[in-house]
Amino acid sequence: MMPVRTDRDALIALAHIAEPADAVIGGLVDDLGPMAVVDLIATEASGLRNGPALRARLERVDLALARSQAEQGDIRIVDRTHPQWPHRLDDLGVRRPFALWCRGPLDIDAGLARSVAVVGARASTGYGEAVCRTWCAVLVDHGLTVASGGAYGIDAAAHRATLTAGGRTCCVLAGGVDVPYPRGHTHLISTIAGRGLVLSESPLGEQVRRQRFLTRNRLIACLTSATLVVEAAHRSGSLATAHAAAELNRPVLVVPGPVTSPMSAGCHRLLREGSATVAATPDDVLEMVSEIGAHLPAEPPRSIRDDLSTTESRVLDAFPAHAAAGFHELMLSTGLPVDDIAAAIGPLLRRGLIASRGHGWTLAGRQ
Amino acid sequence: MMPVRTDRDALIALAHIAEPADAVIGGLVDDLGPMAVVDLIATEASGLRNGPALRARLERVDLALARSQAEQGDIRIVDRTHPQWPHRLDDLGVRRPFALWCRGPLDIDAGLARSVAVVGARASTGYGEAVCRTWCAVLVDHGLTVASGGAYGIDAAAHRATLTAGGRTCCVLAGGVDVPYPRGHTHLISTIAGRGLVLSESPLGEQVRRQRFLTRNRLIACLTSATLVVEAAHRSGSLATAHAAAELNRPVLVVPGPVTSPMSAGCHRLLREGSATVAATPDDVLEMVSEIGAHLPAEPPRSIRDDLSTTESRVLDAFPAHAAAGFHELMLSTGLPVDDIAAAIGPLLRRGLIASRGHGWTLAGRQ
Repeated sequence: MMPVRTDRDALIALAHIAEPADAVIGGLVDDLGPMAVVDLIATEASGLRNGPALRARLERVDLALARSQAEQGDIRIVDRTHPQWPHRLDDLGVRRPFALWCRGPLDIDAGLARSVAVVGARASTGYGEAVCRTWCAVLVDHGLTVASGGAYGIDAAAHRATLTAGGRTCCVLAGGVDVPYPRGHTHLISTIAGRGLVLSESPLGEQVRRQRFLTRNRLIACLTSATLVVEAAHRSGSLATAHAAAELNRPVLVVPGPVTSPMSAGCHRLLREGSATVAATPDDVLEMVSEIGAHLPAEPPRSIRDDLSTTESRVLDAFPAHAAAGFHELMLSTGLPVDDIAAAIGPLLRRGLIASRGHGWTLAGRQ
Repeated sequence: MMPVRTDRDALIALAHIAEPADAVIGGLVDDLGPMAVVDLIATEASGLRNGPALRARLERVDLALARSQAEQGDIRIVDRTHPQWPHRLDDLGVRRPFALWCRGPLDIDAGLARSVAVVGARASTGYGEAVCRTWCAVLVDHGLTVASGGAYGIDAAAHRATLTAGGRTCCVLAGGVDVPYPRGHTHLISTIAGRGLVLSESPLGEQVRRQRFLTRNRLIACLTSATLVVEAAHRSGSLATAHAAAELNRPVLVVPGPVTSPMSAGCHRLLREGSATVAATPDDVLEMVSEIGAHLPAEPPRSIRDDLSTTESRVLDAFPAHAAAGFHELMLSTGLPVDDIAAAIGPLLRRGLIASRGHGWTLAGRQ
């Protein structure tokens, strides 16, 4: 076993040893400090149920090698004591990572301060991908960073749309940042590493494991200001990200879709559970991640009717299509007091909606 | 003016005189009784602001003619004292109708006891119409009556789908039941009158008026057990029906759709306002209108993974793809206590997910 001389050494060692989101080790570190926990794991009688497994792992850790591999790959190891440590991850409590491997020019803290997780189905449809493309471009226009998991389908559409729009994107991997997953996204992931950020709480060389996707999803949810699920099947990993975000009190938005599309079933499920709100436009997302009042959605166009009072509207509707009407006809037809009818005539005339004819008025102009 | 001899006479007269949902007249009738209110309207100094208008209308009412026209058209006038009066309309309070004109064999009370209002956009899309067709057939299968407003688009699709499925449908009109509106639905409306029910709170011969659509919508919402909005533009009359249903504490469901379709914008708006819940399947509607627990939605199919514990799942995932692994490898790879690994091996073997090989095990069978 290598010598552990600093908290930083210990945190990086623990990132190699403990499963991500392990609450027992996390709790011990909060209580005793990282170096004491490494010492404890090194003892044969640690009292930990999985002590032998942890000790076997500890024996394999080579901090010097880990550091030199990171340096060679231009990868920063940002542990909990690092100045770039993103303190929003502290919301994960004892389940927060010990260290993060960061590959790419984007600062993990400042670069994700205003960010949206855009996640969704691997087997996405043209609909979901089109929504991704349009909306990510709007998010980029508003200076937001788009984070996702680098998977096929929606994740990739979100990363690509953000890159195309010249925006900042962050890809959070379940394995090491030097182990592109899925393999088919090797080129995409290195493009992101070149212009944005690829990050993981798994050490270099670590292969993906099913369990790690779940813990990775909690990272995506926690690192961002809000989570947007674009498409998700009835049972989809994206639902885990959404639930994680909801538990962290981060806003969760879902894009609804056709009920005839299985790829929207998970989105609708989140809505029915009450875990998410509907995002029908990118404005709905911006509203959630902006200062209150900073982003007010555009008002829909008003019709001429909106400027009429209820009484004016009722008087206008009482006119026959092709004939004139006077006070008596309007009173009979509307059932309104004569005073109210008289008060409505002026505004309707001024707006050009009626015109005088004989002792009464007729419809005129645009209705 | 014709003589008013009974409460029934007075209620039918008031249905001719007062605007639908007029809270002033409605309140007076609740306080004084219908005959006293007709007498009051007949006085020159009634004190009512629109007294002259109401008196002018009262003078034109011909009860004998109204009754004989109804009889000739095989139309029942169901006033508040009629045995078929649907008491769920009493939820409208002072704004409930004085009488209803009913055309068709369906009993307005019993026939709508279990019913769903299916409403939506006039400019519906193929998507909305397809959803209407499929879902209305399911609602019919479960013995529900489908009510709507007879308009173009979703309303017509709902009526037609229900007729095609051999179900009961009710069309609530804004004008008289002998004034088919829209004109293009003359044939559809008389088909409904032949097999279901066409009803209105407007007397025979009454033309539609914009104002009356809103009051008609409150009737649809109040007569039914739940309201389903299938498609609705951002500003749509269907939203008024939905709001009326929500105010009456009736369940409101909306079918989500593509965010790229303006004809789903109103549905998403209702969801964002919190006025409605998502209906992603007809089951979601049935759940709302059935006795609690009477209709449980079908569970989605389970995968083999669902039957594994978290530990079993983690152990299974730790196996290499094409090689055997023993306790030591599994302990290193999972970080779990040996006891837990030993406990997981049995169930994984029994399910045929792993097989013994040498001193360890390999993956086997369907993952």
